[in-house]
Amino acid sequence: MPAALPPPILCTVDVVLLTLRAGALHVLLVRRDKAPFAGAWALPGGYIHAQEDSDAQASAARVLRDKAGLQSPYLEQLATFSGIARDPRGWSVAVAYCALVPEHLLPADALASGAALVGVDELPALPFDHGQIVQVALERVRSKSQYSSLPVYLCSEQFTLPQLQAVYESVLGEPLNKVSFRRKMDELGMLEPVPGALHSGGAHRPAQLYRLRPEFRRHLSLSARGL
Amino acid sequence: MPAALPPPILCTVDVVLLTLRAGALHVLLVRRDKAPFAGAWALPGGYIHAQEDSDAQASAARVLRDKAGLQSPYLEQLATFSGIARDPRGWSVAVAYCALVPEHLLPADALASGAALVGVDELPALPFDHGQIVQVALERVRSKSQYSSLPVYLCSEQFTLPQLQAVYESVLGEPLNKVSFRRKMDELGMLEPVPGALHSGGAHRPAQLYRLRPEFRRHLSLSARGL
Repeated sequence: MPAALPPPILCTVDVVLLTLRAGALHVLLVRRDKAPFAGAWALPGGYIHAQEDSDAQASAARVLRDKAGLQSPYLEQLATFSGIARDPRGWSVAVAYCALVPEHLLPADALASGAALVGVDELPALPFDHGQIVQVALERVRSKSQYSSLPVYLCSEQFTLPQLQAVYESVLGEPLNKVSFRRKMDELGMLEPVPGALHSGGAHRPAQLYRLRPEFRRHLSLSARGL
Repeated sequence: MPAALPPPILCTVDVVLLTLRAGALHVLLVRRDKAPFAGAWALPGGYIHAQEDSDAQASAARVLRDKAGLQSPYLEQLATFSGIARDPRGWSVAVAYCALVPEHLLPADALASGAALVGVDELPALPFDHGQIVQVALERVRSKSQYSSLPVYLCSEQFTLPQLQAVYESVLGEPLNKVSFRRKMDELGMLEPVPGALHSGGAHRPAQLYRLRPEFRRHLSLSARGL
């Protein structure tokens, strides 16, 4: 007798896309156009398309492309949320991903049509377990930012050290000591000065612009000790 | 027209069970009794049973119970492995878990019947992507042991501080400084002396026995800085 096939389980991905707007972390929400929860704001997500996606990471990239017009941002698997209770349609598995994007890379028309950036302290109640997924993403990003180059994915391509420090401070939610911040950046070894590029920032004298070294544009630089 | 149902995807769990044997990390392997790869050593795993399991963590706990006779050890979600390429039966999602168990809690009869503990440096080639799953588990456990109480889950219920340090050293694969190790344990605040319990260890004078405080038996104690 052949082994019985397991009952069907809904396989989906959800994406927590984070960006910095006016110095505060914001998350991308889209208005659901189908039941369940039609009309509600929720994380962008969708079914895994087995005939189209090579793996769940490809599903998440496709969802971001389709729902926010975004090409290959920094995308990391967060955790998987599963069970009978989280989706009224039945037993489901949602592989959740976290994407970090600088605000200027978000296409304006994506935000015009049924999508919005909402400050992480101003989130409405979200359907499914999306509220919990956002909290897990925030914890992960904050904890990882203590000892890695992660926040650089929220910056413009070129930035001054004070601008980068401000980004770290926005993510971590606390001020950092300038001297130890610069020592940590040296230790991470992820930055290089942009030759001849200076930022003229109003009252101050022009500051050197930096960028990520090519080898860290896709991979994090990690440090053994936190900030 | 109702929305088309997504094509079926195989939903499974895999468990990397780690224990310390003779001071070295070992992983539990079971001999597969069905195709594909019948007869090969592999991680214990199986289909999610939607009618029985409340979520994937419950599936992993059930797999450990059925394949190793183990009740709820420390069990943590590791990552999800997915795609068209990893299982010859079709597009699959495997939610991988990591379990840490002291060797004396592994039932002897489980190891007698088609299961084995294999040193992590002596693993055979494993089917599916199980080799990669084990490597991700080892990286996670080693990195987390730098700043948490995780290795305590590999200890007996009561242990001396030198015994605990030896467990940390086995997991991390490097010797630790005794003074800074003890300072770190104080910082983690997870241990309590067992009243009146001393360990008489041969040539040395009897040493105080410790155990995890009740509030940390299910939850890790984390420290901001590494060992």
